Amino acid sequence: MKLIIGDKNYSSWSMRPWLLLKQFDISFEEVLVHLYRPSTTAEVLAFAPDGPGKVPCLIDETGAAVWDSLAIAETLAERFTQHALWPRDPAARARARCVSAEMHSGFGALRSNMWMNIRASFPGKNATPEALADIARIEAIWRDCLDTYGGPFLFGEFSIADAMYAPVVMRFNTWQPGLSETALAYVERINALPAVREWIDASRGETHAIPYQDVCP
Amino acid sequence: MKLIIGDKNYSSWSMRPWLLLKQFDISFEEVLVHLYRPSTTAEVLAFAPDGPGKVPCLIDETGAAVWDSLAIAETLAERFTQHALWPRDPAARARARCVSAEMHSGFGALRSNMWMNIRASFPGKNATPEALADIARIEAIWRDCLDTYGGPFLFGEFSIADAMYAPVVMRFNTWQPGLSETALAYVERINALPAVREWIDASRGETHAIPYQDVCP
Ligand SMILES: N[C@@H](CCC(=O)N[C@@H](CS)C(=O)NCC(=O)O)C(=O)O
Ligand SMILES: N[C@@H](CCC(=O)N[C@@H](CS)C(=O)NCC(=O)O)C(=O)O
Repeated sequence: MKLIIGDKNYSSWSMRPWLLLKQFDISFEEVLVHLYRPSTTAEVLAFAPDGPGKVPCLIDETGAAVWDSLAIAETLAERFTQHALWPRDPAARARARCVSAEMHSGFGALRSNMWMNIRASFPGKNATPEALADIARIEAIWRDCLDTYGGPFLFGEFSIADAMYAPVVMRFNTWQPGLSETALAYVERINALPAVREWIDASRGETHAIPYQDVCP
Repeated sequence: MKLIIGDKNYSSWSMRPWLLLKQFDISFEEVLVHLYRPSTTAEVLAFAPDGPGKVPCLIDETGAAVWDSLAIAETLAERFTQHALWPRDPAARARARCVSAEMHSGFGALRSNMWMNIRASFPGKNATPEALADIARIEAIWRDCLDTYGGPFLFGEFSIADAMYAPVVMRFNTWQPGLSETALAYVERINALPAVREWIDASRGETHAIPYQDVCP
């Protein structure tokens, strides 16, 4: 299995399936494509001609492409049933899908104002009312899940839902909005995962830069 | 089971699970909440206090809320295994998840320029380059799927993927961008489904209007 990803410093969508595979110790070959270059789309399309030319994209053992972070997660969940990629309890699984899908299609204000740039530090910047409303909703989701399922991760053990929210933790590291204690403790637990440390360390070693994402006016 | 939806004329996300349930003849009670009123969010939160206060939202027989169109679809797929909500073949199912997830988080230019308003007719308007690029991608997805799986629907029989794209068909009815013959034929097949006709007819009978979505400057 191959996973096509973007630069670790910037590619929030790529981090999700990468972290998921690492956390469940599923072996894969990583192929990194630099983002925002004239050749980026063509490089991804070379692996997956029917896809949108975006990362992440999984190429399975049959050579078939599976694109989109959430579709990759669902597909891995049904192919690796020996692992609880989703919570095993049906009610918890339904809830995990709700918060994962909510992240997948929402939080536009957070995304556009507080982009992922792991190497950067922009504390307190771009805290628009819309971004803060997104953050408040994320804090409510985390609190509900941690209260209901008892932690340490959103649904007890690490699951797809945590992988979906891990890039948000990276954004919080960079932009440092004010967070509740519950949220901060969860942020620290995600940051402490060996696979997350590996991703962060790799991003710090990357040299490909996207100039307009490295400044915050 | 209850499905909380928005106005049929405008609520593109609501149409997906509604159509899915109708197509598979799964019985449910429909609860319609008018969108863009001061009380909208509170009305949805009354049914699902842990959710984002958006529609669609499914309330299952245990009273648990499942929100987000794609999470509802996945949850129904695993609870009604007697029906092929996703294609039964694993490779087709993976592909159906890719195109459904791509729709779920993408096509922002199409969404913002060509909003869903079934009663309106804005032919040729708002055809920005970005919206046309989104439409070209949708045409490519439909063509690939129809070629590969033989039609009449994206993966042969009607599936979640068709439900995810049905609101796009409504947009095409209103905005009438130029489309290939293959795409037009698929549009006509979706329009001809009795459940789609029922949704369209109901939208024409609705009186709650969202003024700024009824004009195209
Ligand atoms: N919904 C997709 C989004 C994928 C996406 O937008 N990827 C970005 C990078 S994080 C990309 O490939 N951009 C390059 C491009 O658009 O050319 C997912 O969840 O995987
Ligand atoms: N990602 C969600 C989006 C839901 C959504 O944005 N719904 C809109 C109506 S189509 C809504 O409830 N808007 C009312 C509001 O935001 O107050 C889904 O797929 O269900």
